[in-house]
Formats: sequence, structure tokens, C-alpha cells
Amino acid sequence: MFEIDRTKENGKALYLQIYQLLKKHIKNELNSDDKLPPIRKLAAELDVNPATVARAYNILDDQGLIYKKVGRGSFVAPKYSEQSLGSEKNKSMLKHGQIDLSENINFASAAPSTDLFPVADFKYAINKVLDRDQGEAFTYQKSQGYLGLRHSIREYFLEDGIKADLEQIQIVSGAQQAIDIMAKILIEYGDKVVVEEPTYFGALQAFKSRKAQIKSIKMLKDGLDLDKFEDYLKNNKIKFLFTMQNFHNPTGINWSNEKQLQLLELADKYNFYIIEDDLLSELYYSSNKVSSLKKFDENGRVIFIKSFSKVFMPGLRLAFIILPDNLLAEILETKYATDISSAGLTQRAFDYYLREGLFNKHINLKRELFKKRFKVMASEIEKQFSGLIELKYKPKGGLYFWLKLPETKNSHDFYEVAANKGVVFSPGSLFSIDQKPSRYFRLSFAAVNEQEISLGIKLLANTARNFLDDKKNNSNYSPLL
Amino acid sequence: MFEIDRTKENGKALYLQIYQLLKKHIKNELNSDDKLPPIRKLAAELDVNPATVARAYNILDDQGLIYKKVGRGSFVAPKYSEQSLGSEKNKSMLKHGQIDLSENINFASAAPSTDLFPVADFKYAINKVLDRDQGEAFTYQKSQGYLGLRHSIREYFLEDGIKADLEQIQIVSGAQQAIDIMAKILIEYGDKVVVEEPTYFGALQAFKSRKAQIKSIKMLKDGLDLDKFEDYLKNNKIKFLFTMQNFHNPTGINWSNEKQLQLLELADKYNFYIIEDDLLSELYYSSNKVSSLKKFDENGRVIFIKSFSKVFMPGLRLAFIILPDNLLAEILETKYATDISSAGLTQRAFDYYLREGLFNKHINLKRELFKKRFKVMASEIEKQFSGLIELKYKPKGGLYFWLKLPETKNSHDFYEVAANKGVVFSPGSLFSIDQKPSRYFRLSFAAVNEQEISLGIKLLANTARNFLDDKKNNSNYSPLL
Repeated sequence: MFEIDRTKENGKALYLQIYQLLKKHIKNELNSDDKLPPIRKLAAELDVNPATVARAYNILDDQGLIYKKVGRGSFVAPKYSEQSLGSEKNKSMLKHGQIDLSENINFASAAPSTDLFPVADFKYAINKVLDRDQGEAFTYQKSQGYLGLRHSIREYFLEDGIKADLEQIQIVSGAQQAIDIMAKILIEYGDKVVVEEPTYFGALQAFKSRKAQIKSIKMLKDGLDLDKFEDYLKNNKIKFLFTMQNFHNPTGINWSNEKQLQLLELADKYNFYIIEDDLLSELYYSSNKVSSLKKFDENGRVIFIKSFSKVFMPGLRLAFIILPDNLLAEILETKYATDISSAGLTQRAFDYYLREGLFNKHINLKRELFKKRFKVMASEIEKQFSGLIELKYKPKGGLYFWLKLPETKNSHDFYEVAANKGVVFSPGSLFSIDQKPSRYFRLSFAAVNEQEISLGIKLLANTARNFLDDKKNNSNYSPLL
Repeated sequence: MFEIDRTKENGKALYLQIYQLLKKHIKNELNSDDKLPPIRKLAAELDVNPATVARAYNILDDQGLIYKKVGRGSFVAPKYSEQSLGSEKNKSMLKHGQIDLSENINFASAAPSTDLFPVADFKYAINKVLDRDQGEAFTYQKSQGYLGLRHSIREYFLEDGIKADLEQIQIVSGAQQAIDIMAKILIEYGDKVVVEEPTYFGALQAFKSRKAQIKSIKMLKDGLDLDKFEDYLKNNKIKFLFTMQNFHNPTGINWSNEKQLQLLELADKYNFYIIEDDLLSELYYSSNKVSSLKKFDENGRVIFIKSFSKVFMPGLRLAFIILPDNLLAEILETKYATDISSAGLTQRAFDYYLREGLFNKHINLKRELFKKRFKVMASEIEKQFSGLIELKYKPKGGLYFWLKLPETKNSHDFYEVAANKGVVFSPGSLFSIDQKPSRYFRLSFAAVNEQEISLGIKLLANTARNFLDDKKNNSNYSPLL
């Protein structure tokens, strides 16, 4: 069907070539709702990895050129050029712009489902702030952020034992921007940085964009393998370690307090920063709160990134950084060069929402709700997966469970058979530097209710039984992690 | 008072050292509302350029540690640690977070004053969208942007003769982010790029962050000096030209159609992209609309950035890029790694606002209003500045006038005496790669009414008379531009 060019001179990544060929094919030859070739079939035909074809399909999907039906494949989206705005067809295309998983069970999403958002309360805050601030809400804010919000965030952190001066708090548009900005400040061409293995995909992308040399060190059940880390530090000067200390993504691990203190000592000894990314520390399900690393940071080693996307509403695009003093001047210039400042109305409304105690109210409700889901998922995994799939760590909170298939199987293949049965999750390859298939996968219960959890785990267990028996599913890839 | 360390080993920029010394001084020795040393005095004492001290003061001001009173100097902000939230003192500090120019005439601001914002209409759009979309408005949007808004933006561009496919439109959080993202995609370490001279400061920052080699080529009255540009192209392979084609910032110049076509030919001949940044094309004051370069782009050379910050409300942080096909896959990945996606509520509300025709209504009103201001400023400049300060180009629209002091004088010094009289503007050094003092300065009428314009120009003319007579104001710097 297509020709791809593997010569070095061409230099264009294979997934990009496939994306462009498919786009031309869709535009010139296919009609609305025509089915595209299955990913595996096209991959075999072109002699490339299925993941490469999947990447091209994802771009087309993002652009609204195709839509996916889980278990049935990908289809050409209704062609917009043939339609007028506002028609029925058009509405259907708006819907096609998103993967419709409503009939399915989504253990892949790390963001809470939209029915959990406190829309009415936040709408109230927006209107209050608009009445109060009028046009001020829509002009440029200072690059460091709206001063009122920096005050209330300072109070919020204090409750968690984190003492920050007002000028150490920087407001940004989400944790991904925080990571991107810190990468800009700290990484020069070829600098070395260390990440946890496994780790968050978006951080790897930001570090790669700055041409960092990225080294990963294995996570153990109480945090990083610090002996291996120190071995590396002895021979390599690094700029920073990127870490998630509590309810780690994707493993659910909490660092022990001992390891936290050891890590800070290493940072002093080998002179590097630590970027601590905290998304979930509010979601503890036992009586004990968890400790941030920042709380113990006496020498200005820790850059603390706090996002509320996962425990509140991701679409706000709002997060906070607490910085050591000697990075304060640079961050203002870098934030300015990145997007000048974050949106004023959002900052002011969130400030109002915090001050009125609405945020704490919401978090408490959410903790109770997620705790129930957590218990159901833990017990279903124990009951259903026993002898089939191994739970690698038993988390104490958060939103994730990290699981391991038996040897010779990989979670990419398992993903495809499970998706056919209507259950999706995140294969382990997403969380590694080289993205190679692995035996691991992540289940998240952010966007599923208790009933869906029970049903989904049972479906996965049944699927696994056939999958594991099936010799042809044995992987050619060497197990990675 | 302070010691600064000029040894190479120290490696810390002077302004950063001064900032840190001042901060310590403020924290340990000064009290609230104490006056800081005047910039010139401290600069003389430390034997550094006044601009270096001013930069340190600006950071302290951004952080809310000091506040400025125009014409009276800088003062220590009320110390927040001594206050409880919500107190009177605290409110005063909230105000101190912004430079209070309310009693002064601000020809520096390029953003419209907040009384011009259509707050009621936009509030209506927000509430409509929240009622319609509920939680969907607060979840992650696709990285490319909310599909509905991409539809309405496509329609909007069509009216200006720009034909874009739906998948060529990328939504971003403001023009600065657009520039930052394009820099990430196009600039590898040491790549060459070309900018107009003078040009927009924020673009230079973004290109420097990617370690580009930046070359500037002079603007003539109808666009870039294309002969000089081609001379450069013959010996240098460049990645792109960054340009503002209409009502150029800071000069107000419009490129002629002839030069636009020549530029596209050069792009084909020497194989480079053109980043066209359009902020003001809606603000034409004669009967003729202006032409974007993108309109003439047949070979996918032009990356078109459209921001509404200057003609609408900057705090929304919303802008759009139209990309050539072969950059589409990369932009999705880069936008994701930058901040995942732009805020959903803003995208949805702006989409509603566009579809209901409220945006066009607003732009028409604003064009009429700015046209009046433009006429007043043009005639006052002609009347008052004659024989004192030269108007370099006569603009046909936009928000800026670009002026030139006589030889031996520089606009940095003029800024300081004018600010003492209560009038501020943008010195020309802000718009050049090396930021050295120059004879030029920019007047913007975005945030001043007709009365303020008349008064301000008269005040500037009177100030100039003394300033130009005064021998001691003769500059040591060679004129730059």
C-alpha cells in the first residue's frame, strides 16, 4: 500500500513518514467512516514495529482526521470540508475528536473523570472574582503569578510543613510547564540528569528536548536504589534527579524517610538539585499523611513542583514551584520567555476557591471516594490476578497499581487483546527512556467507579488466562525491567 | 555598601549578584517603606551600568519585595511575614505588587488598559459554556486544541484570505508560547536565525534559550533590507526569519506587497521558514485592510502566529499557529512536552464568543477608538516634537510610533528624566539583540486616552527641550541604530 524511505539521507522518522502517507491516503482515496488497516497488519506490511504505526494513528486521531472505536479499529472521520458548521454531522465530528471510551473500562486515564469536578463551586468562584476584579482579571499578571494566590498557596504548603518565602513561590501553567521551565534553566546541551526507573513520560520528553543525557536508576520498594545511584554519581557530574516521592507514577511507591534524608545528603555531597514532582500526596488512605522531600530540605537542594491536576481539575492548567533562592532571578526570565505569565482569571478564581475553604472540602470528599475505589481494586487484584499477574508493590495511597506479567510476555501485546475486550491500561514501555516493550503495566482508578473496577479486573483476569496460555503471544523482546 | 565579584571563576551575572545582595540587605537591615539607593548612585558606587542595577531592581519589584513610585524611587514593600492575611497592610502590598502608574502617563504599555475589556460579554460566554459543557470544560483538551475553536478560528482566518486546513491550526497559550514552541521545533544548538532590527524582545529571549546564533537585518520603510538579507543568505544557512509584517513592533512599519513576494522567493531559493507574528493587523485606520504574508504562501514556507492579546485581552493567554504540513506531527509532541494542552474553559468560551459575533463587534469598536487616539498622537507629535525629536516612520495603523533623538543623546537617559516628570515609554535598547542604549524609543497609545496623549506628548516635548540642551546628558555610547 505504501512505500517508506529508510535511507539515512531522508532522515525523517518512520512514524512521521507513515503519518504523512496515511494522511494523503485519507484525503485523496478514502471516504468518511471507511475503516483503516489494522495496526498489526500495516506494521507487518511495512516491516516496522506496531508501536510505530500506532504512533502515526494517534497523531491522525489527535487531529480529528480519524476516530477510534475500541476493539473495532480506526475509521476516517466525517470530512469537515463537506460540511457546514453546526450541522448534525459536524456535531458527530466534534465527538470523534475524542476517543470514545464511554462504553469501555478505562484504567489508562490518570485524570479523574469529569463527573467528579466541583463545577458549580468553581463557577461561583469565577463569577465572584469577575464581579470583584473586572478587567484586571483579563490583563497580564506578573510573571511570578498573582500575588494573592501566592499568599494562599504559601498557607497551603505551610500545613504540609513546607515553609516557603513568598518570593520562592512561582505560579505556572501545570506541572508539565514546571518541568519544561526547570529543564530550560538547568540543562545545557549534553548535561547529565537522572530519573527514576520507571518514570513519567512527559518529563523525559522535556529533558530530551534540551538534549540532556538521561540516566535511569531502578526504583526499589522504599525509593531509588541509592547504592547504584551513588556509584553513578562517583563517576558522573549530574545537574539534577527528577523524582516523585509519594504514590510514585507509575509504581505507587513511597520513599521511606530514611531514604529521603540519605538522598539530601547525596545532593550535598555531589552537588546536584532534586526536582520533586508531587501530584498525589493528598491521597493517603491510612491515617498517616506522607512527607514531602521538600519538608526536609535545609540547604536549598529541592525544587518542589506541586500540581493539582490529578486531585482537582487538569484543564485549569495551574501548578506551583517552590524554588531555592539562587534560582529565583532566572525563573522569572525563563517564565517570561516561555509564555509571559499564566492566565489571570484562573489564578484569581483558584485563589478565591482556596481562601473560601472550598478546595479542602473538595479534597476531603475526593480522598474518601478514592479510598473506596482503592480498596475495591486492591482486593479484586488479590482475588482475580493470583497466579496470573503479579502486583509488584502494595501502594498505600494514590491512584496507581503496578503489575507484572510472567516472563516471555509483554504488556504491549496484552494491551491489544485487553482493548479488544473493552479494557484499556498503560503499558510499561510508556514509562521508560527507550520505550521498549516490557512485562509491566499500570492500572489507574482515577476515571472508573467501583462497579467498573470489579468488572474490569475480572475481564482482565479472564483475558490474561487465554493470553498467557497462548504460545504465539510469547514475546520476541527481551524483558526490560 | 556592597562587594561584587568580577572574577571569571565566580561566573554569576552582575545583575544576579546585585539582586541577591540587595535582597539580603532588605531582609536583614531595612524596614518597610525604607527608600533604596537611587539606581544611578548605586551603579556609580559599584562601577556598573545603570541598566544592570535597574534589572536587579525589576526582579525585586516583580517579587513584591520592593515597590516603585515613579519619579521618587524604589521602597521596601511592607514585610509580609509581619502581617496576617487580609489586613489593610496586606491589601496595600497586593497593590504594591504592580507598578502603580495610575497617576502617570504610560506610553510604555503595549497592552490595552483594562477598562477597554468586554468583561460582561466574556463573562456571559463563560457562563454559557459552563452550563453547556459542565466538567468537560475543566478536563484536559487535546494537545492541538479544542476542536470547536479550531473550526471557528479557521472561519476567522478565511475572512482574511488565509486558507488553512483544520489540522494545520494549533491552539497555544499566547504568542510567546507559540514562539517558544517553534524555537524548540526548529532550532538545534548553534543554528542560525534572522530577525528584524529592531524586533520583539521576547522572541530574542526564546531564541537565545535554544542557543541560536541570531543575526539582525535592518528594517527600511517598506520592510527588511532584502539586499543585505540576501548577502547574508549567500554565505549562511538559516533556519528561519522572524518577522512582523504589519504595524511592526516597535517601528509601526508595514511590509510592501512587493517585498512580501520577494521574501517568499528568497525562502524558496535559500530554503528557510518564515515565522510571521501578527498581533495588530485588525488595527488598520485607513479603508484598506493589510495583507498577511501567509496569504501569499503557496509552498508552505510561512508559520503564521496570530495573537489577540493586543486587540482583545492579554490575560486570556490564547493564540493560534497555522503550520505547514510537514511540521504538524512535531508540533503535537512539542506542545505536549511544553504544557500538555491549553486551558479548556478559555478555549471554549472564546469559541462561543467568536461564534456569537461578539468578537467582531468588539474589534470594530476598538478600531474606531484606537483610530481616534492614533490621529491625536500623530498630530501632537507633528506639532510638539518638530525640531526636537524625529518621527522615523509614519505608521498607517497599529499602536506604535518610533522616534529618534538627536545625535549624542540616548533614550535610556531620556527615559529617566521623563519618568521623573511622570511619563514613561520604551527605550530602543529593549528591541535589540545586545540591549545597548540607542537614540530610538517607542511610544504606544494602547493604554492612554486622548487627553493623556495630548498632555503626555506636551510633557515629553518640554522635557526634551531641557534634556537636549543639557551638555551633561551627552551620551558616552556610540549611537546604535
